[in-house]
Formats: sequence, C-alpha cells, structure tokens
Amino acid sequence: MSNQGKLYLVPTPIGMNSIISEAVKAIVCETRHFIVESEKESRRFLKQCGYDLKNNYPDFYIVNEHNANDSFVEYLNPIKLGLNMVLMSDAGIPCVADPGSKIVKLCHQKLIDIIPMQGSSSILMALMASGLNGQQFNFHGYLPSEKGQRIDSLKKLQNEILKHGNSHIFIETPYRNNAMFQDILSNVTSSINLCIALNIEGENQLIKTQSISQWQKSSLVLEKEPAIFILGK
Amino acid sequence: MSNQGKLYLVPTPIGMNSIISEAVKAIVCETRHFIVESEKESRRFLKQCGYDLKNNYPDFYIVNEHNANDSFVEYLNPIKLGLNMVLMSDAGIPCVADPGSKIVKLCHQKLIDIIPMQGSSSILMALMASGLNGQQFNFHGYLPSEKGQRIDSLKKLQNEILKHGNSHIFIETPYRNNAMFQDILSNVTSSINLCIALNIEGENQLIKTQSISQWQKSSLVLEKEPAIFILGK
Repeated sequence: MSNQGKLYLVPTPIGMNSIISEAVKAIVCETRHFIVESEKESRRFLKQCGYDLKNNYPDFYIVNEHNANDSFVEYLNPIKLGLNMVLMSDAGIPCVADPGSKIVKLCHQKLIDIIPMQGSSSILMALMASGLNGQQFNFHGYLPSEKGQRIDSLKKLQNEILKHGNSHIFIETPYRNNAMFQDILSNVTSSINLCIALNIEGENQLIKTQSISQWQKSSLVLEKEPAIFILGK
Repeated sequence: MSNQGKLYLVPTPIGMNSIISEAVKAIVCETRHFIVESEKESRRFLKQCGYDLKNNYPDFYIVNEHNANDSFVEYLNPIKLGLNMVLMSDAGIPCVADPGSKIVKLCHQKLIDIIPMQGSSSILMALMASGLNGQQFNFHGYLPSEKGQRIDSLKKLQNEILKHGNSHIFIETPYRNNAMFQDILSNVTSSINLCIALNIEGENQLIKTQSISQWQKSSLVLEKEPAIFILGK
C-alpha cells in the first residue's frame, strides 16, 4: 500500500512549559490535512509550530465527543490520495484520554502507516512523579459523576489497592475537583496514598503524594484547574 | 524546605529515533549526582547529552531489581545538602515499568520538590498508535511466566475486555515474546483485537493491530526485540 499517505500522531502542549520538538514542528509545517479535536486550539498550535497560516490553508477535520459515533471513513481521503495527515487533540497525546482512537483503528484496517510522535502525557508525568506503583496501574478516565456511584467506585478502587497494590489513576472535570477530593477524604481508608497532580507543565504545577490521613489534616482546596488523581499504596 | 535540592525525573531514549530535549540536556549537564538503573547505560546517555565526562566526575547511585528492598535514604544526602539530583532509568520514563518510584516516594515524605521532565513512554506511544481504547486501560507489567498461570491471566483479561472494554497492556522479556504471542493466539477469543508494538522509536518499528482471527492467519514470528502487547476491543 505504498501509494497511501501516512497518519502522524502528534502530541500537543499540556502546559505553558511544554516543549514542542523540532521533529513535530517539521511534520506539522509540511502537512495540509489535520484531524483535530477543535479548529481553534489547533490553529493556535500551528502558529506555535511556525506554520504559515497566511499563505497556506490547512484543512481541519473534527473528531470530538459531539461526533464520536460517525464513521470518519471519508476523513482519510487525503491519505488515499497519497498525502500525509496529522491527528492531534487539544492538549496532550491524541487517543489517550482524548479523541482519535477510532481514526487510528480505521487506519489499521486500511493498512495505513501510523507514526506516533514523541510528546508528554500528563497521566504518565503524574504517575512517575507520584512515587506510587508504576509497575501495575489502571487508568479509569472519569469516575461516575453521581455521588452515590462515585463513592461506590472509590470503595472498589480502595479494595483493589488493598488486595493487589495497583495504582489507580482518574481525572475529573475541573469544577468537580474539590467535590471529588472531599469524597476521597471521606470514603477512602486512611492508610491509602493519594497523589494530586495539578497543572502539569503549567504555572503553579503541584504534585503531592501523602496518605489520606495526612491529606485530611491539610487545608488544600482544589480550584478549577486540570487535576489528576492517583490512589495507591 | 527551600534549602533542599530538587529531584529531576529524566526520561532517556527508548530507541535510536528518540529525541533528547534541550531542557533535559541542560538539567543533566549541570547535575553531579545521578540515581540510575545502571552506570554503563547512564554514562552513554550523559555522553549523548554532551556531558563533559573527562573533566566532571558524576556520582552514580544504583536502583534496580537487585537492591529493590534497600531503604535508599542515604541516596538523598546530596539533596539534603542543597544539590539537585537526577533520577533516570536505562530507557524510557523512570518509575513507570522501571525502577525509581521508591526514591520518589521518599522525596514526597521528605517534602523534596520533584520535577518530572518531558519524554516518551513506549507504553503510551504503543497505546496511542494501537487504535484501541485509550479512555480506560490497565498496565500489567509482566504476566506470569509459568504457562498455566499465563493462560489463566490471558483468559481473565479476555473476560474483562468482553465485559468492560478496557485495553490491557503488558510486556514480556524478549526471548519469551513468541511464546506469549502463540499463547495469545491459542487462548484468546477470535473477536478480540491484539496490538503488537515492536521496537518503538527504533529501527524496524512495527505497530500493528488486528483481530486474533486475523493474526492467526499471519506468519509473523516475534524475534527477541522489545515488544508491547495490547489486548482490547
């Protein structure tokens, strides 16, 4: 299938301290067709890469929660015509806690070459800096938003940790961060460790791990900032 | 605790195509005390960073599977004296499928600042390029090496996937890759998808996802290369 273009998977900055590699800039600047989470954020990223938006007119194909059920087959037409495409999300690694995996799956089915580019994931940066078990871990995305179900989920994670010692990673929409934090403090047994990672690679980055009983003594109030929670041993 | 040094978590190249960022080079070249998985690989990495090994004499403190039960408290003496230290593993992200988390945990206990640096993880690069579920995933490290137990584990993962749709990621020591591959093909139901990611960021990188029934028709033999396996929907 050598006449087909390739799909590049391009990580985008997760905070103002993120670095965009020269390799990513080069791929982005020579690409015309982008599959993206949102056009606005993507244009901003293209500018950061030095893309000449005045003289080149990139095409954006949107993949996000609003059209997650579409088939997207026609998005790959440029690749069929021999052109390379870039897949990226608004921040971080596409397809991981972000849209895009359906596109990549299609590419596997159509024997299109997929090239993942190097970049940072806030999930793994939080995990490596947590001091918790990085040999076995589970990423859950969002826990249920309904309070009773959320507490049930937290209790299940607690029992898993006591039994197996895995780390359990989850995220929350920023305006619910503090409610989640309080539910953890009220429902998870005091010996378990909690890592809170706020604003990874951003201003005021905070990554702090201590036991639930230590957190209960702290006066931290989680503001509406990007947060990653890790429970573990 | 502003008189203490900081601990930098530094990712190292996972393949010959990995890029070392200028930020990582700068931190490495101004550091004297390194907590590492092996001295030999670390010296090679320092050279790649432009470290002046002829005129500077870095100290290496070893953390690996052979001394995993040590307390390591004394390793942090340079930090107590106000010096920064670097923690790194032989390849990839320290603490994630690699040694180091015990050191980081100690730093949390001693209120030492921990700075994770940007770099690539072969686990997440494989996951993003797999086309499989990146919203919920479990990393297992190694499955049991004993055949009966390994098959039990694979059956459990299969049932988890059919029930919850999570992706399940695991690794294998290179000389057992092909035995693992054959056990997957013989024991996991045909509708489940398997991604095999070989030599991420290395020469002959291969990332291929297809159903077990499609893999059963392939003639791929896994050589003794770094491999990541992902089972999912």
